[in-house]
Amino acid sequence: MKDFQEQNLPKFEKKIASFLGSLEAEKTLKDAMSYSVEIGGKRIRPLMIMAICNFFERPVDDDVLVIAGSLELLHTYSLIHDDLPEMDNDNLRRGKPTNHKVYGQAHAVLAGDGLLTLSFDWITRTNLGDKAKLDLISFLGKAAGPEGMVSGQVADIEGEQKILTLEQLQRVHARKTGALLKYACQAGSILSNVNEREFNLLVSFGSLFGLAFQIYDDILDVVSTTEKMGKKVHKDQSENKNTYPGILGLEGAYKMLDEVIGKARNELIRLDAVDSILGDFLGYFERKGN
Amino acid sequence: MKDFQEQNLPKFEKKIASFLGSLEAEKTLKDAMSYSVEIGGKRIRPLMIMAICNFFERPVDDDVLVIAGSLELLHTYSLIHDDLPEMDNDNLRRGKPTNHKVYGQAHAVLAGDGLLTLSFDWITRTNLGDKAKLDLISFLGKAAGPEGMVSGQVADIEGEQKILTLEQLQRVHARKTGALLKYACQAGSILSNVNEREFNLLVSFGSLFGLAFQIYDDILDVVSTTEKMGKKVHKDQSENKNTYPGILGLEGAYKMLDEVIGKARNELIRLDAVDSILGDFLGYFERKGN
Repeated sequence: MKDFQEQNLPKFEKKIASFLGSLEAEKTLKDAMSYSVEIGGKRIRPLMIMAICNFFERPVDDDVLVIAGSLELLHTYSLIHDDLPEMDNDNLRRGKPTNHKVYGQAHAVLAGDGLLTLSFDWITRTNLGDKAKLDLISFLGKAAGPEGMVSGQVADIEGEQKILTLEQLQRVHARKTGALLKYACQAGSILSNVNEREFNLLVSFGSLFGLAFQIYDDILDVVSTTEKMGKKVHKDQSENKNTYPGILGLEGAYKMLDEVIGKARNELIRLDAVDSILGDFLGYFERKGN
Repeated sequence: MKDFQEQNLPKFEKKIASFLGSLEAEKTLKDAMSYSVEIGGKRIRPLMIMAICNFFERPVDDDVLVIAGSLELLHTYSLIHDDLPEMDNDNLRRGKPTNHKVYGQAHAVLAGDGLLTLSFDWITRTNLGDKAKLDLISFLGKAAGPEGMVSGQVADIEGEQKILTLEQLQRVHARKTGALLKYACQAGSILSNVNEREFNLLVSFGSLFGLAFQIYDDILDVVSTTEKMGKKVHKDQSENKNTYPGILGLEGAYKMLDEVIGKARNELIRLDAVDSILGDFLGYFERKGN
C-alpha cells in the first residue's frame, strides 16, 4: 500500500492542484477551495478508485486521476459545509483551522458550492466514453444528493435530538459516510470495465468498508486524543451524538467492527482480491490507542 | 406570452413537484427544498428554455420540462444560499420568509446543496441523447461554478468594500446573473438542435438579457417598494452596493438599460424571432414605479 500511495498520490495531488489553478475564478475563491483540498487527509476515496483500477490492470492514467480528483473535491465540499458554525461548528480539521475560520463563513459556503459544482463539471472534461461519463455523474449525484449524503447529514443533525436504534444509526451512516465510499467502488468499477458480478461484489465491499469506517471513527472519538486525530475528540459524547460505542459499548463496537471487516474481507475473497492493494484497505482499522 | 405561460407553466410546476416528491430523502429536507422551489417567482429561466424550443418548433415535452426544471432547481439553490445570514442576510424572498427563517440555517445550507446536486443528477435521467446530456451538464457546470455564478457571488460580496468601475460591475454581473440566463439559451439551443449561427445569436441574446435584467433589478431597488417587490428595497444604497444607478445615476441607468435591450432585440431580429415568444421577454423591462 505504501508503495502504491507513493507511486500514485503525488500525481493525484498535482492533477487537482493544476486543475484548480487553471480555473478563471476569483482569487479568494480559488484560495479557499485549494486550502481545504490541500489540507490533505488520507485520500481514502480516491485511493479506493485507483486500487480497483490497479487490481483490474487498468492503468492509472489522466482520466482515472480526474475521476478520483472529482470525488475528492466533492468530499472536501462536504467537509467544509459540515464544519460551518450552523452545522457541526468545528474549528479544527486535520490539525488546521477549518475553512470558515480562515476565509470567513460566506466564502466557506461558496467554496463548498464551487467544489460541488466542479466535481460534476470535471467528469465531463475527461476523455472517457459518453456512457461512462454519464454513469459516473449519475452515480455521483445519487451518492451525494438528497437520496444519499445530504439526507445522511440531515438525519445526523436531527438524530442529535433523538435516541436512535442500531438500525437507524446504520441507515444514517450508510448515507452520510457510506454513500461516497460505495461510489468510489462504482467509479473504480466503471473505469475498469468490470462485469456485473464483480460490480456487485465491489459495491458490497464499498458499503461494508463505509460502515466499518464510521464505527472506527466513533471508536477513535472515544479512545484517541486531539493531537493524534487533528480534530476535537470526545465530541460525540459531549453533544449526545448517537454512536456505535454509545449503543453497543466500546467492546461491543469493536466486536461489530470485526464482524463488518470480516464481511468486507469475504467480498474480496470472492473477487480473489484479498491479496491486492484492496486487501490492504482493511489494515486501516488498527486498534489504535487501546 | 400569457397564453404560453398558461399552457406550459402548470405542467412545469407539476414536473418539479412530482420529481421532488418522488425522492427517497429525509422529510424535512424535501420540505425545505420544495418550500423554496414552490415560493415561485417568475420562472424566467425555464420560460426562456421553453420559448426557444417553441420558436424552433421543438415540442415542450418531458425532457424539455426536466431541463427547464433542473435549471430552476439550480437557481433556487443559489437564492437559498444567497439569503443566508453570512451572505446577504435576507429575511424575505418573494414576499415569504426565506428558507433559513423557516427551516433554520443548517437545513437551508443542506437544502441548497441538495438542489444543486439534483440539478445535475436530473439531467442524466432524461431520454435525451448522451451527447446532449453531457453538453448540458458541461454548460451548466461552467455557468454555475467557480468560472461563473459562484465567482460572481464572491466578487459581489468583495465588491461591497470597493468602488467598482462600470466595467468591473458588468463583469461581476455577467457571472452572478448573466451566466444562468446565458445557460438557459444554451440549453434551449441544444434541445432545439440549432445550427452554429443560431446558437451564437441566442447566447448573445441571453447574455444581453442577463445584463438588462441586472440593471433593471438595480433600478427597481431604487424606485420600487417592498410591497411590490416581495423583498426588501433600498437595500443596495444602505449597504453601499455597487449598482448601475449608483454609478450612472437613475436616468443614466435607464439609458443603459434601453441600449442593452436594443442590442438584445437586434439579435432577435437577426434570428427572425422578434415576433415570437422570445420577443415578449423584452417586455419584461417596463418602467414600473416611475
